[in-house]
Amino acid sequence: MRDAFHEDLDKISDSLVEMTRLVGSAMSRATTALLDSDLGLAEGVIENDVQIDAIRDDIDEMAVQLIAQQQPVATDLRIVVTALHMASSLERMGDLAEHVAKVARLRYPHKAVPPQANATIVEMAQIAERLVAQAGSIIAAKDVDGAEALHADDDEMDRLHRDMFVLLVDEGWEGGTESAIDVTLLARYFERFADHAVSVARQVAYLVTGEWEHKRRVGAPA
Amino acid sequence: MRDAFHEDLDKISDSLVEMTRLVGSAMSRATTALLDSDLGLAEGVIENDVQIDAIRDDIDEMAVQLIAQQQPVATDLRIVVTALHMASSLERMGDLAEHVAKVARLRYPHKAVPPQANATIVEMAQIAERLVAQAGSIIAAKDVDGAEALHADDDEMDRLHRDMFVLLVDEGWEGGTESAIDVTLLARYFERFADHAVSVARQVAYLVTGEWEHKRRVGAPA
Repeated sequence: MRDAFHEDLDKISDSLVEMTRLVGSAMSRATTALLDSDLGLAEGVIENDVQIDAIRDDIDEMAVQLIAQQQPVATDLRIVVTALHMASSLERMGDLAEHVAKVARLRYPHKAVPPQANATIVEMAQIAERLVAQAGSIIAAKDVDGAEALHADDDEMDRLHRDMFVLLVDEGWEGGTESAIDVTLLARYFERFADHAVSVARQVAYLVTGEWEHKRRVGAPA
Repeated sequence: MRDAFHEDLDKISDSLVEMTRLVGSAMSRATTALLDSDLGLAEGVIENDVQIDAIRDDIDEMAVQLIAQQQPVATDLRIVVTALHMASSLERMGDLAEHVAKVARLRYPHKAVPPQANATIVEMAQIAERLVAQAGSIIAAKDVDGAEALHADDDEMDRLHRDMFVLLVDEGWEGGTESAIDVTLLARYFERFADHAVSVARQVAYLVTGEWEHKRRVGAPA
């Protein structure tokens, strides 16, 4: 039978999984809004970001209640602090999806992404969504080693990010400077979203084990 | 006489002030490295970011020890959670200074910022450094209303950010696409650094009062 601490921790964990689902959906819709120049969809993503922020606030409050009621000792306390950091990262991922939607809205009815860059943006978005879905599964399954499997996608994202800059400065770039600026920022949003997803997945290891030292090796994305 | 909880909290607060000092110094040196194309200075900023990350880890650990030893009740617990969020924001500000330094290193021995954009970058850097210095003073003085005074600088940063984009897409832009990309990202780094500084300063209000509701109105930068 689970003790009260772990039952409360499971509720926080469920909320983290819910956040991964919501930020994944937000990024998916933001990308569609971007590529199809769909104003309504973009505005929906922007408006719904408050829901993601609200869950993060709920997790803060659940953590405070858990600590006050269960008075966990050192290792368990570190686990709760880790959960707070994960919620922070997920909230920022929601903000990044909102930023993508805002670029779509800014350029509507035009398309922010020129045809030349479409394929790379699509690939970046697919990897970003896959990474956050995997992070959600890893949290739900308490899969301590699951983050190792994300390396390939993370490396691929970094490669796409570099490819995009090569494309932007190539003399064959047809989008002009304004599009180059938009695409520069969009590529950064997807890349950072992926970094945060990997960071969240890696933190599951010490969410489960409470091994604080693990964290110092992992680091957090900028 | 201060009780043990507030004595421990003061130590965390001192570390937060130290972080503001370090990230302000990092951004100042990164900007000099950028504008003077000073490779050694840029590499120093990049190498020293681990010190900022280490203080953030120390604050996490101090918070865990404080909670375990003092077992603070609801409002006091919320204060500790707020301190953790502030440390997170400050660590990210350190990362942003590191990003500026990395652009300087990438373009060395050339200058990443073309002469046309120099003045705006200098202004953005000055505001960023002023905001983080003020955030430090506000934490040190427990100045609940101090963040109000940051509005003018924050608005000015947003104006400079918009001005920069106008400059970049102007047909008189002499820097080419590569420089436009560099300057786009640099402008975003300064603007986000400033946003985080304002967010940190605003959190002092509920660091001091423990009024959780205040936070929901304030929000966090993306």
